[in-house]
Amino acid sequence: MIPFSFDLLHQDTRTQARRGRIHTSRGKIETPIFMPVGTQATVKGLLPEALKEVGAQIILANTYHLFLRPGHQTVQDLGGLHRFMNWDRPILTDSGGFQVFSLGQLRKISEEGVLFQSHLDGSTHLLTPELATGVQEALGADIIMAFDECIAYPSPRDYVQRSTDLSARWARRCKEARREGDGSALFGIVQGGMFPDLRRKSCEDLLEIGFDGYALGGLSVGEEASVMYDVMEATLPHLPHDHPRYVMGVGTPENLIEGISRGVDMFDCVMPTRNARNGVLFTSFGRISIKQARYARDEQPVDPACGCYVCRNYSRAYLRHLYQSGEILASVLNTHHNIHYYLDLMASARSAIEANSFVEFKRDFYHQRATH
Amino acid sequence: MIPFSFDLLHQDTRTQARRGRIHTSRGKIETPIFMPVGTQATVKGLLPEALKEVGAQIILANTYHLFLRPGHQTVQDLGGLHRFMNWDRPILTDSGGFQVFSLGQLRKISEEGVLFQSHLDGSTHLLTPELATGVQEALGADIIMAFDECIAYPSPRDYVQRSTDLSARWARRCKEARREGDGSALFGIVQGGMFPDLRRKSCEDLLEIGFDGYALGGLSVGEEASVMYDVMEATLPHLPHDHPRYVMGVGTPENLIEGISRGVDMFDCVMPTRNARNGVLFTSFGRISIKQARYARDEQPVDPACGCYVCRNYSRAYLRHLYQSGEILASVLNTHHNIHYYLDLMASARSAIEANSFVEFKRDFYHQRATH
Ligand SMILES: [Zn+2]
Ligand SMILES: [Zn+2]
Repeated sequence: MIPFSFDLLHQDTRTQARRGRIHTSRGKIETPIFMPVGTQATVKGLLPEALKEVGAQIILANTYHLFLRPGHQTVQDLGGLHRFMNWDRPILTDSGGFQVFSLGQLRKISEEGVLFQSHLDGSTHLLTPELATGVQEALGADIIMAFDECIAYPSPRDYVQRSTDLSARWARRCKEARREGDGSALFGIVQGGMFPDLRRKSCEDLLEIGFDGYALGGLSVGEEASVMYDVMEATLPHLPHDHPRYVMGVGTPENLIEGISRGVDMFDCVMPTRNARNGVLFTSFGRISIKQARYARDEQPVDPACGCYVCRNYSRAYLRHLYQSGEILASVLNTHHNIHYYLDLMASARSAIEANSFVEFKRDFYHQRATH
Repeated sequence: MIPFSFDLLHQDTRTQARRGRIHTSRGKIETPIFMPVGTQATVKGLLPEALKEVGAQIILANTYHLFLRPGHQTVQDLGGLHRFMNWDRPILTDSGGFQVFSLGQLRKISEEGVLFQSHLDGSTHLLTPELATGVQEALGADIIMAFDECIAYPSPRDYVQRSTDLSARWARRCKEARREGDGSALFGIVQGGMFPDLRRKSCEDLLEIGFDGYALGGLSVGEEASVMYDVMEATLPHLPHDHPRYVMGVGTPENLIEGISRGVDMFDCVMPTRNARNGVLFTSFGRISIKQARYARDEQPVDPACGCYVCRNYSRAYLRHLYQSGEILASVLNTHHNIHYYLDLMASARSAIEANSFVEFKRDFYHQRATH
């Protein structure tokens, strides 16, 4: 068993961009990396083989959903999440916190945890730091996230302060609840809303507890992109260089490039998968909506600069036809292309960092979008 | 260009089952064969690579649907249906007749053709034998079906008689409308309802015109299975041995085995694909409904006797979870297994015919279902 570790391989000379490598018992993860979201033990529309074909090194699964259905005990009895969904590379599970606040009907937040009602059947559950940790261990996650309170945006400073302190106490309980020796990692989540001093305080609290990696939560919740970048800049310098940094739930290709240039190593977001199902495709020259009539007789691939399976084999006209016809393959092919786009962007960013040319890479990235 | 031809390789010694081989310019088709249905230029949920993995030699596409959306002219301009959908093996297109009667709002049947309204946008179209043939040629089909009237069941004898005569005249017009020299085949469709003498008359009319293959239409329209088998027995002896025989829109695994034993070479049906999307899976021991609670913790594959990708990698519990969660992969995996089941059954039937053991094969087929 290879225990979790992180190597900082190279620091870009002109930005904060970092090239790193995470070691897990299920293989290496080259950073910066984007993690496709597999909410219900499947990345919607993609077989594991397709995920590997597009270069997925790690995926994310949602504790809240799997806790409610099919249940973490069932998954554990069936050999764990990896075997259940036929995915042998690393899996990061979120703590369930975000979904409890966004999907569940919230009943009560207390020192002990969060009482909520399932969005599926109305059943009541108390999710605590100990349970959230135990569920993720039962699932067999390679990276486990601490349970935290997700704060609405905007919120008054005093609420954010009290919530961030509560999340720090919960984070400590997560660490204390950990089963030892399975080689998995536990990440703490920095909160503090959009207040730089509260973010800094949250970093200090988490560092005192000590985690294998550090995430920034509470971003991409409705704030301006510039505010998100400001929070990254105010927070990341307070996190140790020798641990991975993960910005949760972010974001657009632009958000990823900006995050990388500020020193972020890991991202996840439903954006490429959800957009795909709505016919929105990411390309080197920006987004396109494949449902538009202009593509009805367009024999070009989605993105002539893309080398993915979809762009090698299908025309925009065919993808539009599938979308207009409500065909399953519309979601399958659109998702394949979008995830390839995100992961290929990360691979290019990694190469650029290694070559100390991330500044030029970023300039080209924006240039292609502006000149199309 | 290899023109269409059929070799009768072997006749089973104890039944009417036949082992044959169809040659087309896009490759060989070993018969008996089942053709997965790709209505809108896609077999719902299966990539072309998956279709090949499960052994699909030929697929069916629907002229009615593609005529209305995206339009046969668009498909032709984009390089034809094969290129459009990334499928380089043979394609059979139906004539549109069945859908005009079942989906379109019927306006008027005349000697000239059928006036109908699109189920998509209400637009009015006149489908004639000449247009149906031209549309299929524009799509680039390898096997083109003659345009016929689909008769409701039950219908009075005099209506069936007049309709069958009309379909024969339309069949002649289809043959006369044919573009020469593209190597594709034109199949005539035997009608005549459930009346043996009208079926025989229909065979004689079509043989006089002369087609590359002969189909039985108007079956599996609500009649008892025994009636269907009676019609097969009353009709097939009047068709030439040296041409392929195709029973349209049939059917269950049992229907296929019974059809083969009576001398049928080709089948198509939405049953395996449509059932898959409803969570119904075909196995060597009969059908199962994967949504049942009994499978929630079942770590067995769908069918322990099946060697398909799905059965090698996923449990019934996972498939049930995907179905209950409304995930895209539920349709993808269920369809993959069901089409594999149908095509594997055909492959086994071919081997049995070659070994003159089709009688034993059929007995085992029923025995496995009865003893489970
Ligand atoms: Zn692509
Ligand atoms: Zn199978």
